[in-house]
Amino acid sequence: MARRYTRLITTPAASRIPRDWNRPFVSLLSDWGARDPSAAICRAIVLGIAPDALIVDITHDVDKYNVRHGALLLWCALPFMPIGAHMAVVDPGVGTARRPIALETERGDYLVGPDNGLLLAGAQRLGGVTRCHLIENPQYRLPVVSATFHGRDLFAPATAHLAGGVPLEQLGPQVDPDELATIDWPQITVRDGELETAVIYCDTFGNVKLAGLTSDLTEAVGSLEPGMALTLRVGDGRRAHSEQVTWQHSFGHVSVGQRMLYEDSYGRLCIAENQGNAARSLELEDGSPVTIGRGQAAG
Amino acid sequence: MARRYTRLITTPAASRIPRDWNRPFVSLLSDWGARDPSAAICRAIVLGIAPDALIVDITHDVDKYNVRHGALLLWCALPFMPIGAHMAVVDPGVGTARRPIALETERGDYLVGPDNGLLLAGAQRLGGVTRCHLIENPQYRLPVVSATFHGRDLFAPATAHLAGGVPLEQLGPQVDPDELATIDWPQITVRDGELETAVIYCDTFGNVKLAGLTSDLTEAVGSLEPGMALTLRVGDGRRAHSEQVTWQHSFGHVSVGQRMLYEDSYGRLCIAENQGNAARSLELEDGSPVTIGRGQAAG
Amino acid sequence: MARRYTRLITTPAASRIPRDWNRPFVSLLSDWGARDPSAAICRAIVLGIAPDALIVDITHDVDKYNVRHGALLLWCALPFMPIGAHMAVVDPGVGTARRPIALETERGDYLVGPDNGLLLAGAQRLGGVTRCHLIENPQYRLPVVSATFHGRDLFAPATAHLAGGVPLEQLGPQVDPDELATIDWPQITVRDGELETAVIYCDTFGNVKLAGLTSDLTEAVGSLEPGMALTLRVGDGRRAHSEQVTWQHSFGHVSVGQRMLYEDSYGRLCIAENQGNAARSLELEDGSPVTIGRGQAAG
Repeated sequence: MARRYTRLITTPAASRIPRDWNRPFVSLLSDWGARDPSAAICRAIVLGIAPDALIVDITHDVDKYNVRHGALLLWCALPFMPIGAHMAVVDPGVGTARRPIALETERGDYLVGPDNGLLLAGAQRLGGVTRCHLIENPQYRLPVVSATFHGRDLFAPATAHLAGGVPLEQLGPQVDPDELATIDWPQITVRDGELETAVIYCDTFGNVKLAGLTSDLTEAVGSLEPGMALTLRVGDGRRAHSEQVTWQHSFGHVSVGQRMLYEDSYGRLCIAENQGNAARSLELEDGSPVTIGRGQAAG
Repeated sequence: MARRYTRLITTPAASRIPRDWNRPFVSLLSDWGARDPSAAICRAIVLGIAPDALIVDITHDVDKYNVRHGALLLWCALPFMPIGAHMAVVDPGVGTARRPIALETERGDYLVGPDNGLLLAGAQRLGGVTRCHLIENPQYRLPVVSATFHGRDLFAPATAHLAGGVPLEQLGPQVDPDELATIDWPQITVRDGELETAVIYCDTFGNVKLAGLTSDLTEAVGSLEPGMALTLRVGDGRRAHSEQVTWQHSFGHVSVGQRMLYEDSYGRLCIAENQGNAARSLELEDGSPVTIGRGQAAG
Repeated sequence: MARRYTRLITTPAASRIPRDWNRPFVSLLSDWGARDPSAAICRAIVLGIAPDALIVDITHDVDKYNVRHGALLLWCALPFMPIGAHMAVVDPGVGTARRPIALETERGDYLVGPDNGLLLAGAQRLGGVTRCHLIENPQYRLPVVSATFHGRDLFAPATAHLAGGVPLEQLGPQVDPDELATIDWPQITVRDGELETAVIYCDTFGNVKLAGLTSDLTEAVGSLEPGMALTLRVGDGRRAHSEQVTWQHSFGHVSVGQRMLYEDSYGRLCIAENQGNAARSLELEDGSPVTIGRGQAAG
């Protein structure tokens, strides 16, 4: 009998950072790209307000408008960041009714951005949301707020002020965390002998990240050992393609150009091609269905 | 009767940074790209000379050799940077007779780069040029100056020394700011009921920035209200294309895929497509002519 | 009679940084790209361990798996970095038997990365390797070490600890530097009147860097003066192409679109096209053979 899950939010990763951290820390993530000056302007706004802040740009190359990608990358990165104030902006609804929010997490971080689901997976990885406030207080914004660049005018100043010690409740009225906007994640189906899942991200190496976790695959096919044969089915209809791959710990354990399944360094199921680009060679993209089953014994 | 302008330099944006700023601040802009180590080397040179400097890379992805793009991005970014020393290098004439210069602005910043017009629009936004000196003093350069990487050998050291407190006049002989090289900006024609302008930059979202400002359009068609119909004409000859759009405050006020006109967060007229790429769908690029007129009443 | 060399490692460039430098300095280089959060995570790991460190990202856009490009970019950049701890990761063998190492250089730097030849050219530029240790001590790693992201779990922590003062010998057992893995560089053949070499890197401007140095060309054709005619032969078989170019100090000394030979700012022979892209117009790529000979007198 099949069990169905959606699987992005897992138990929080332990913080890698000493708890006695005492520098203001800020991270920034967006879909603004590297050519335009938007990200630099936010960095400068932060430094203007909190000159002692250490700043890390997680990425500004999230696929345009792809809130789910942004959420996933935050989920990957935040556990490895020092405790701090983290701004994330992938915000197709900027300037409309969607609300600007700042969350506090169990680990002690602040997450700042639009209320469109972007922040929640990352917050879960830091222990979950403890409080949420709207960003409304004009004292913690730029003097003029544009309708199209809230990163600069609202979110970066709020992030810098939080990093510098302004209490969360000063930013604006409290909001019930249960009423925040959420995003959908692909469903996973675990059957006896088979896991049905989908692509959620292809990284810059062409490694294909799946919605499922290693534990889901173990539940379906039993315990996984390096070299174990698995059947990979990708695509549907005419473009369906099935092949035998092996489970491996790392890329170099198969020949150059050969494909494999592995657990990536964040605990996620992943398809790779040694020194190649699995996403390209398998023609996989965001949302593509992938089924993994028990392999056929060789020979 | 038509009035003609060129319109990049506007009244200076108010500084967003507290005036009692007391850390050396450096920003960097170039067309060197992210793959080569050029930008990192300049950052390291700055830190070697001024280890306390806070550094922001505005962008290093200016289109190769595109001095006008570099000037426009400086114009956008500088008002939001802390007062500091700003290096900008888009420099097809490196190693020839064009002069290396350092400017002081009314706001108190230094702008450092080639004398090819790159620095002037940004300087105007910071209140205008108060003094200009050539960079000639060997004391503030690297020991060996190459003919092809003045960013590393001349401009970054000068920028770091200025940020660290070296007086501008120590760098070399004074130059009359009125004799500096300038660049051309597209002309704007304001008629009764119509604004003729041109594309000056397409950002990474495909938002199309025009040479005109909102005030130019208001002068042509009267006051602008959200939802107001406007006629957009792009291209010329066979590729001419005319369509009805609306004036909006932000992207999400029109349906996904629909186009609109708005004032961008720097005060500039801009064409966008909600969650799409207007530059691509309208086949617009740098210099393409764009005319905006009164719209036809619906129905 | 022809002499043959391989030519990447040259005499060390003099350090540009004052010897009394007293801040922990870290540089990072990888092939991880800007879209994924890998580089940001390493930066955050370093700051978590050494919050006072100044960090420069040399580049994270090395061509995927291209160890030789990574080595060349380190060779370019390291002499201009402050003395510090430098992490470099282009590591197709991650998680296999290849060893994680940390080197000390004569200049006083530490170089940290995989034992696949990536670090050696850069180390030579800093005076050569004085000591090498394996990275094995669990005290200087993250608590859990994945099989696919040693940058995060092993190399970044080791780099930060070295920058912060942990003695190299604490990381693990000593290794004989002569037993480290090396990489091949293209051979150069110097004949009377002709230099046979090959492309080793095309930069983001399309400037084509050759394996040979200016001294190699001088040995072949005599002393080089601006404007001196040279014959450039590229490609082989049907795609062979020969043309007259001139030796120049910088790009702007030839007309826009014209090609030239010059010594780049790192001392390397290079082909460029003024305001164009020589790599594209000559269809050159990594490894393409290039021969430079005496030019034909004009007219």
